[in-house]
Order: sequence, then structure tokens, then C-alpha cells
Amino acid sequence: MTQQFSLPTPTRYFMTASGTEGHSKLNAFDNALLAAKIGNLNLLRVSSILPPGCLFVPNLKIPEGSLVPVAYGSIISDIPGKIISAAMAIGFAKKDTYGVIMEYTGECGAEEAERTITEMVEKAFFIRQMDLKDIKTVAVEHQIVKIGCAFAAIPMWY
Amino acid sequence: MTQQFSLPTPTRYFMTASGTEGHSKLNAFDNALLAAKIGNLNLLRVSSILPPGCLFVPNLKIPEGSLVPVAYGSIISDIPGKIISAAMAIGFAKKDTYGVIMEYTGECGAEEAERTITEMVEKAFFIRQMDLKDIKTVAVEHQIVKIGCAFAAIPMWY
Amino acid sequence: MTQQFSLPTPTRYFMTASGTEGHSKLNAFDNALLAAKIGNLNLLRVSSILPPGCLFVPNLKIPEGSLVPVAYGSIISDIPGKIISAAMAIGFAKKDTYGVIMEYTGECGAEEAERTITEMVEKAFFIRQMDLKDIKTVAVEHQIVKIGCAFAAIPMWY
Repeated sequence: MTQQFSLPTPTRYFMTASGTEGHSKLNAFDNALLAAKIGNLNLLRVSSILPPGCLFVPNLKIPEGSLVPVAYGSIISDIPGKIISAAMAIGFAKKDTYGVIMEYTGECGAEEAERTITEMVEKAFFIRQMDLKDIKTVAVEHQIVKIGCAFAAIPMWY
Repeated sequence: MTQQFSLPTPTRYFMTASGTEGHSKLNAFDNALLAAKIGNLNLLRVSSILPPGCLFVPNLKIPEGSLVPVAYGSIISDIPGKIISAAMAIGFAKKDTYGVIMEYTGECGAEEAERTITEMVEKAFFIRQMDLKDIKTVAVEHQIVKIGCAFAAIPMWY
Repeated sequence: MTQQFSLPTPTRYFMTASGTEGHSKLNAFDNALLAAKIGNLNLLRVSSILPPGCLFVPNLKIPEGSLVPVAYGSIISDIPGKIISAAMAIGFAKKDTYGVIMEYTGECGAEEAERTITEMVEKAFFIRQMDLKDIKTVAVEHQIVKIGCAFAAIPMWY
């Protein structure tokens, strides 16, 4: 009963990332969403907890135009040759509870982005005094041709 | 049944734009929302697809304080004399499906903003390999007196 | 009936603020959310009306991972010694209707932040031609050690 009088808590998620070029900065972003398979949705950016019991479903189908809660990181640049990266991570606790989501974007390679985000998750667990069981990450790097976007996301759905 | 366990997909929308001054940057933004007839709502910014079958209802009444998904563009400046513009556009496909929403803001006139956003929609259709049937746009330009905001939006509702 | 086919309008709220340090800018933000007792939620940022009849419930419990509409202001700095502040305010009208929420962040003390935000609410009421009955504010100031965040929020729930 409560469920229908609050915003429903997501029960399924996946992880995705992409690097793309575009005609404008917003088109580069739009193209990154398409390449990440979430281009035809209405993304609602959230900050950023994986609800308890939320299931990993890699090929989750979501109806076009849906309102989809998503944690994401995005970086756009128009400096040719520049390398940009976006990464998302989820830290899972030893006891069965929520996961902690972190995002990172920077002018660096994907490896550095993953190293940085891993450390961010570790700090988030330390401050919560929770034991970290596992970290899942997704990262992408993109070298700018003209106008490009690196994008990583954790879409959540039902 | 599914409906009540996910976030409901909007079924109606309208387009709106305004240019206003304000006492502070946030007040200029607040005044722009009021002038655009969405000042007393809780806007949830989305990125940015018009759901399939979503109906255009120009004088849509929405209860005060409602959570309203909205795609918008906003630009604020405090440089007297400066001209700023905000534009929104929806591209509609030949086949009956979702629409693609683009936003654009810049230090230019409304005409240039509309030209730019039209091109952005065309690129978004090209990348999706969809045939563009029609583009609806809304744009506004505002010349700064002291602190001003140009705002354009596509609120979506039920 | 309508309720379950739109996004439900929040019915309860509280006010919170915190100033924290962190290992990175996002960790400082994450720590500020934790210190403000909303660290394990999925925040959906809204702009920014207190719905009519929304009740003040200071120790509101919200399930972990919930999608929570929240108006907030946040400022992050990595300049040691710098003082930063975040404030939120709600203006209540004489007649029983929605409240107007304002946010303010700046490189100033909490007192100046509260003075500024109070004036912003007054202007928001003036433009609406509504009589202001009362203003509730929350503010925090934080002096940067290494990387810090000042955060103030009005979470809304059901």
C-alpha cells in the first residue's frame, strides 16, 4: 500500500559506459547516451545509493520515454587530442544492505579513473564504518577528435 | 499493474519560455519560472525524450507543489546590455514513436538559438537513422538590465 | 485514483545542514549528506516549492535507497582556510498555500548566507504578490581544511 504513495524504489539496475563524438556538446552527450543504450529515455539524475536488494540485470529493457533514475558521470570537451574518462563504481558491503555508488570523470585515462573511483568507494565505506565486500566498476576513455563526451552510468529500474 | 510499481511515464506536455530580471540570480530564475507558468511546481529536470503518445496540451493545469518532469534550458547573466537566449525543440519522427527533445542556451538572439537547436534535432535524428517529420520549437531572448534569465522548457505531466 | 498515475506530491519534509571535509570533492559531498542524515538515499533534486499541507517532521525516517525529492544547496572548495556557507529557507504565506523554497551558497559566513536568503524569499513573495507570514531557515558555515563541503537541504517525503 505504501508503495503507491511514495516514489517507488528501484529494484533492478545495470552499468554502462561510452565515449562518442557529436556535432555539438549536447549532441555528443545525446550520442553517448545512445551508445550506452539509454538514449531514448528520460533520465532523472540521482545521487547515489543502490537500494538494498536491487538486482543486476545487464540487458534490462526499459520502455522508450520512461522516467529512469540514473547515477551518472559525464565529461565533454572540444579540445582535439585530449583524453577524457568517465567511471562509475558500486561498493557492496559484507552485510546485506544498500550499495554505495560513486562517479568520477576527468582528463585522464580509464585506468586512472578506475583507480581513483575505487579509492573513493573505499573512503565512502570507511566513513560509514562498513566492511567492503566487493566493488563493481565501469569506465571508458575517449580521445577527442572535435567535440566528444565520455559517459558512464548506473541506470536503475523496476 | 506495472504502472504503479515504476515511475509513471508522462502522457501530456506543453512548451513555454520567458525572459525576466530578478534581484539575485536565483530570483531571476524563479521569476522566469513564474513568467513561464511553472513557478509554483517542483521541477524534476529530465534528459530528454518525449514519450510515445504524449499529448500537447497548451494550457495544462498542474497542482501546486507537484513533482513535474521537465526538460529545460536556462541561462543567467549579470552583464547589462548582454543578449541571452533559451530555446527548446522537439523533433517528431515520421513513424509514430517517441520525440527527441533538445535544449539550447547562448549569448545570442532567439533567431540564432532556433537555428542552432533545429540543427541539433536534425543531427539527433540522423544518428538515430529516423526520418524527421516535424520540429516544434520555442525560444526567447532577453537583454540584461541588471540580472536576467532566459528560460525555455517542456514540462511533462499526466 | 489520480495519485497513482502521476508522481505523488510529498506530504512531509524536514530541514538539514552540514559542513564536512572529504578525501575528494565527491567524498566531501557524500560525507556532508551523511552528516545531514540523508547519505543513504537517492536524492532527486527539485526546484523548489513546498507543497500545500506538507508537514514538518524533524526526525523523518526514510528507507535506504529511496528516491527522495530534495531542494538543496551545496558548495565545495579545496582552498584551505576559505569559509563557505550553505543555507535553505522556506517562506510561508499568510493564506494557507504552498511555501516558497530558496537556496543560497557562497564564500561567506552563515550569518550573511541567512541574511541573503531571507531577502531572496522576501523578493519571491513580493513578485508573487503574497503576504509573507514566516520564514524558516537552516544554514551552516564550514572553514576548509583541505577539501570541504557546506550543504543545506530540504528533503521531502511521504
